[in-house]
Amino acid sequence: MPRFAFRIEYDGGPFAGWQRQAVLPSVQGAVEAALARLEPGEHTIAAAGRTDAGVHATAQVAHADLAKDWDPFRLSEALNHHLRPDPVAIVACARVGDDFHARFSARERRYLFRLVSRRAPVVHDRGKVWQVQNPLDVAAMREGAAQLIGLHDFTTFRAAMCQAKSPVKTLDEITIEEIALPSGREYRFHLRARSFLHNQVRSIVGTLERVGAGAWAPEDVGRALAARDRAACGPVCPPQGLYLCGVGYPEDPFA
Amino acid sequence: MPRFAFRIEYDGGPFAGWQRQAVLPSVQGAVEAALARLEPGEHTIAAAGRTDAGVHATAQVAHADLAKDWDPFRLSEALNHHLRPDPVAIVACARVGDDFHARFSARERRYLFRLVSRRAPVVHDRGKVWQVQNPLDVAAMREGAAQLIGLHDFTTFRAAMCQAKSPVKTLDEITIEEIALPSGREYRFHLRARSFLHNQVRSIVGTLERVGAGAWAPEDVGRALAARDRAACGPVCPPQGLYLCGVGYPEDPFA
Repeated sequence: MPRFAFRIEYDGGPFAGWQRQAVLPSVQGAVEAALARLEPGEHTIAAAGRTDAGVHATAQVAHADLAKDWDPFRLSEALNHHLRPDPVAIVACARVGDDFHARFSARERRYLFRLVSRRAPVVHDRGKVWQVQNPLDVAAMREGAAQLIGLHDFTTFRAAMCQAKSPVKTLDEITIEEIALPSGREYRFHLRARSFLHNQVRSIVGTLERVGAGAWAPEDVGRALAARDRAACGPVCPPQGLYLCGVGYPEDPFA
Repeated sequence: MPRFAFRIEYDGGPFAGWQRQAVLPSVQGAVEAALARLEPGEHTIAAAGRTDAGVHATAQVAHADLAKDWDPFRLSEALNHHLRPDPVAIVACARVGDDFHARFSARERRYLFRLVSRRAPVVHDRGKVWQVQNPLDVAAMREGAAQLIGLHDFTTFRAAMCQAKSPVKTLDEITIEEIALPSGREYRFHLRARSFLHNQVRSIVGTLERVGAGAWAPEDVGRALAARDRAACGPVCPPQGLYLCGVGYPEDPFA
């Protein structure tokens, strides 16, 4: 059966997460239902990152095996037709070899977290950013973030229900971009690693926000990491600011 | 009665426009209702630009006379409290003199129009941009736009129901910014003038899109303008890409 890779954009707001569920709507369920409109029967797609409820994607990657040798462009057009009106779109589609696996072939995941600091409620990006009302010290957040770069035991920044075999991961990048908005400021956290633990990004950003607010000192981040204790983590921040925005493979399937 | 100026951000999607209406929800009506929660009775606010149904604002300016000499920060906080859950926020508030009038004192209006060109349906900016599926030639659009700069009779680019006394206006700026998106391209049209005719921005952008698509030659824009005939205009584009993003006064009331 020919295998296809998909780059998928979605608004996580109306979904209980990527993963298919018995009753609640999921992104995986929406895409599989669209596939079933093209080729009747059961479909199972595998994704690079199983995003949580409310988490968005600009470039999730998934793959599926189909019966017919579809033209990739026509396949993406047909899927987008059947995905309406769900906020899910196939933005790229390619025929790949049987050895390509969206999850196991991935060598890198990139996440973006959007945090907005301002008094007045967010209007245009409602549901798309995490808003706090206190001002944030970006230099302090960057100093805290620097302590997390590299190979560490990230037990502190890992959900209790995380299923990864090991809490030891290498965090390759965490940069914080500061953007002046017409009203308020936005902080964009860019994180990059081969793979992430469950809730790792939200645990890190929630902790760094406390540093930015002045409630934590930057060096407290290193201490929390060294504790290797979930209780040492700052508050886990909400999902609506988080975007899976890139997955890297040894060879780009969409190039 | 002390007079206050407000800078207001809103998502035009759920509203029948700025202007108060008998039955349909309006932005003016929402703000006036919030004012009535603070000072019972009827309130009338005047705005710099009466945006149409579906048009957004990042910096609408309005003024109102109140009975109490409110602290501006506390007033904006109280209004934002009562505006929830409507997508309307007071992002700045200032005490101004009786000679300040949000509409008649304004010397400049700035609008942004966001146009996205890509095949797959827009997900994250749904309701916030106008999407077309054809590619656009930005150089041709810029060439067409240049013919509209300056003092002209804009009858061609004016709604039949426009109430302005004269169709002669000076367009000070129309620049087109091109942004590469993770998927597709966005074109941001920045327009600036002392004042605009009804539907002028949407008539101009709708016409320039035809130029970008190759259906019109750039010089057809100048010909349409010279015709001084509404029938010579291109299609008026939809409202959801349009933002009132700035109003200029001889002295900035919020400085």
